[in-house]
Amino acid sequence: MTSNIRYRSRASRADDAEDKEYVGFATLPNQLHRKSVKKGFDFTLMVAGEFGLGKSTLVNSLFLTDLYKERKLLNAEERIKQTVEITKRTVDIEEKGVKLKLTIVDVPGFGDAINNTECWTPVTNYINQQFEQYFRDESGLNRKNIQDNRVHCCLYFISPFGQGLRPVDVEFMKALQDKVNVVPLIAKADCLTPSEIKKLKEQVREEIDKYGIKIYQFPDCDSDEDDEIKQQDKGLKESLPFAVIGGNTVLEVRGQRVRGRLYPWGIVEGKTLSWNLRLPFPALVLL
Amino acid sequence: MTSNIRYRSRASRADDAEDKEYVGFATLPNQLHRKSVKKGFDFTLMVAGEFGLGKSTLVNSLFLTDLYKERKLLNAEERIKQTVEITKRTVDIEEKGVKLKLTIVDVPGFGDAINNTECWTPVTNYINQQFEQYFRDESGLNRKNIQDNRVHCCLYFISPFGQGLRPVDVEFMKALQDKVNVVPLIAKADCLTPSEIKKLKEQVREEIDKYGIKIYQFPDCDSDEDDEIKQQDKGLKESLPFAVIGGNTVLEVRGQRVRGRLYPWGIVEGKTLSWNLRLPFPALVLL
Repeated sequence: MTSNIRYRSRASRADDAEDKEYVGFATLPNQLHRKSVKKGFDFTLMVAGEFGLGKSTLVNSLFLTDLYKERKLLNAEERIKQTVEITKRTVDIEEKGVKLKLTIVDVPGFGDAINNTECWTPVTNYINQQFEQYFRDESGLNRKNIQDNRVHCCLYFISPFGQGLRPVDVEFMKALQDKVNVVPLIAKADCLTPSEIKKLKEQVREEIDKYGIKIYQFPDCDSDEDDEIKQQDKGLKESLPFAVIGGNTVLEVRGQRVRGRLYPWGIVEGKTLSWNLRLPFPALVLL
Repeated sequence: MTSNIRYRSRASRADDAEDKEYVGFATLPNQLHRKSVKKGFDFTLMVAGEFGLGKSTLVNSLFLTDLYKERKLLNAEERIKQTVEITKRTVDIEEKGVKLKLTIVDVPGFGDAINNTECWTPVTNYINQQFEQYFRDESGLNRKNIQDNRVHCCLYFISPFGQGLRPVDVEFMKALQDKVNVVPLIAKADCLTPSEIKKLKEQVREEIDKYGIKIYQFPDCDSDEDDEIKQQDKGLKESLPFAVIGGNTVLEVRGQRVRGRLYPWGIVEGKTLSWNLRLPFPALVLL
């Protein structure tokens, strides 16, 4: 997931001076690199799940921005009237000179109504529209500056209290599985003990298998990679669905400023948490 | 609430020997006491709220029993088919010779479907039926052994993640408010920090006022009570909706066995929690 975002060029560029004189196919990788840096990348991420599961907090933690500054929380009356809608927020991020145009597609009101029948239809419609738009743009004459608005990935937030998937979770993931990469996440994992997280993960995995839900499959790493990377890759695949925590307050722990959550019985902090839960990647438990 | 259950006779009984000889209206309190001990008490408690909010755990913690031994958790497929139904479990509890017939009315499947329109109808129908039955029994000839199955109290579990009441919460409480004493609870409060609990309580109280939901009002204590009891009474009223935690594992803390929840960053334990949250009653945060 993060590899798309924290893109770092691994290709070692040839010396610039030499580069200018030499003309041949050996410069093709360099040309590709320059072009991609100039053009930047587009990435569209969809976040979906019940209200209050920390979707916005997680997005803010992931990209260290505040995408939802102007958001107003609705009260119960407004939420009764609210329909499922799609909102889009775009932010330009730059890391080491490489630009990323990040679009976050949000589905406020999803699963929040009393009657949630077909509440995934606006979402599937939206995804289909983007495919259609891209297809039309690609069939057109001016194909140089096509804006790619297709949804690349959908983070689906599962309630930590459900003891498995709820009916609406199954239906949503099934409706989206052929259109977009669905990555299921267990939200607000700090309200579960490590053994409960393990049990819930197993239960969700079992149910995903049982209902034939196609979630995003991480590609296998190259066979010539280091053993350590292979191990990490295996661990990453095994830890699906990821358990996540979003922390938007900055606390001071042992003289250091960390993002976390302060409970009367202890501090939830990214590093210690991933260590305690024996997770392979601290970054997957985001604080 | 607990006063009905942990009933303790405060009336000091006159000496038994003297009692037998004396006949007069001064023995009436004693007669009432004897009769109530012989007959025992009926208490019917309804628990309602979304799946997974710890209703069964809380009931088990409250009465230190295991009422849900034979319960089988449904998977997502079974939960899709499931309709809202009413289940009733009865247990006889005895404390210091005083018997209590406790009936727990549960509403599995409530709010769990994709379409939850009118999911409170089976609940209101059930309550009405009990009123009707009691009315019929009271109008009948043999009124001696009437079984009181009316629902005396309904504990309504609010999700800690909702940032207030959800539409289904408002509708449920409004449907029940004139039929039964509704006591709103914030479930699984251990996933909120103290300031979040305070904020959520305020929000819920505000919304209860706004939508004119009539929740159970604690009766005022007698004006001749001690200041300490008056203070407790005030604290109790102010802490509505109660934040609760159910812990069904027994842990060893500082050589003592306590009911609690063990997180990697600390142990949630009844006593310390109520102290930390400055709650007037440790018993209200049940572990």
